[in-house]
Amino acid sequence: MNVILLPQENLTADRALICDKGQLEHIRSVLGAGIGDTLKIGQLHGKLGTGVITAMTQTHIELGEVALSRQPPKKLGVTVLLALPRPKVLRRLMMDMAAIGVDKIVLMNSYRTDKSYWGSPLLSRIDEFVLEGLAQGVDTVPPQVALAKRFKIFAEDELPVLLVDGTGIVAHPYAARSFGEVVRADGLPKVLAIGAEGGFIDYEIGLLERIGMTAASVGTRILRTESAVNALLGRWLL
Amino acid sequence: MNVILLPQENLTADRALICDKGQLEHIRSVLGAGIGDTLKIGQLHGKLGTGVITAMTQTHIELGEVALSRQPPKKLGVTVLLALPRPKVLRRLMMDMAAIGVDKIVLMNSYRTDKSYWGSPLLSRIDEFVLEGLAQGVDTVPPQVALAKRFKIFAEDELPVLLVDGTGIVAHPYAARSFGEVVRADGLPKVLAIGAEGGFIDYEIGLLERIGMTAASVGTRILRTESAVNALLGRWLL
Repeated sequence: MNVILLPQENLTADRALICDKGQLEHIRSVLGAGIGDTLKIGQLHGKLGTGVITAMTQTHIELGEVALSRQPPKKLGVTVLLALPRPKVLRRLMMDMAAIGVDKIVLMNSYRTDKSYWGSPLLSRIDEFVLEGLAQGVDTVPPQVALAKRFKIFAEDELPVLLVDGTGIVAHPYAARSFGEVVRADGLPKVLAIGAEGGFIDYEIGLLERIGMTAASVGTRILRTESAVNALLGRWLL
Repeated sequence: MNVILLPQENLTADRALICDKGQLEHIRSVLGAGIGDTLKIGQLHGKLGTGVITAMTQTHIELGEVALSRQPPKKLGVTVLLALPRPKVLRRLMMDMAAIGVDKIVLMNSYRTDKSYWGSPLLSRIDEFVLEGLAQGVDTVPPQVALAKRFKIFAEDELPVLLVDGTGIVAHPYAARSFGEVVRADGLPKVLAIGAEGGFIDYEIGLLERIGMTAASVGTRILRTESAVNALLGRWLL
């Protein structure tokens, strides 16, 4: 937690109120902060800045001298279409994509996505994982998140809209062209599709290509989904 | 586990013997393979190929028709100097660096590395994590791994040797130049240094710069160590 994110209703003029249990615990135990100490804070969907602790109780911390003057960092300008991953890695993936600055995340079905994943209780905690990611990456604006349980309907009805003013790449180990080659030719894509473990099946690749995405390979090494997502998105940072 | 890696002594002419518990369990439970099925295998430090299951018992699996003809993928040509991370993330970091193709990994001390990390029992399991990474990335050649418990001694005595025929970059949030800028000017570095959570302190950055490394920033967003390592190394793949 590299910034304490607060909803607008907890901020008034130059004062702020922190009541979230996780944040209280972090300020007390990890930061070991006390009255008079300055905290890095941000208004959700708003600006970044600081506040000074003026009071601490069991249930809340009050801040004074609140000054929010810094714009949050820019987003990367990319939508990630990710085959719904194993619940075990969902939290870290959502955190990482939010922290690194993805604009929009579509968790979608694919042939190799285990059907049981759609029933995971963790899916109801996505907003929480996204906030964790923003607090990690020091950003205040959550990425949009959508679920697409029907691959074909999403690809045919919604994907074309996302591709209107940009290109799309689907990571595919068996593609003829490399990711670097496609990016050097067309620039960074606006849409990046990444499969589940095992990747997309040929039918899915074919459908995405028909809608206008380009299949591109990142070499023969098979990476964990988390590693692949970060390795690909790093290209936007560097 | 995308390939079953076997030591040379388990391979003779066109036959192979699998006795590792983790591999046996993977073949039985995850792959659900039986007699007559073909497995992807590789000889540690050697070639990749296939073998066909000819016998299965509780304690071992025998393969016939073993053919190892494919060279393992090339390494990236980079040494990663990583401030020793929290034990909790050490396994995944070692796996990811091995899977993605890092040549050499130096786990080093830094001011912000908690001293207790050096006492973690997980440090004795690094070889195992590296093998997991190779089996993930479908490679047979383990990266070299070294521990450098003294930052200054490592930087002054060993780092210059690593930099003899190439450049080095240390990731640093407050560097004047961006990673992309430095890479466009000098090409990909042969040595990449990445700090612990909180990054390197000024003294450490100064020392690394004096030895010849260039500090480069990857933007204001603070990433988890795992995310940062993969995002940076992705640049070698793409």
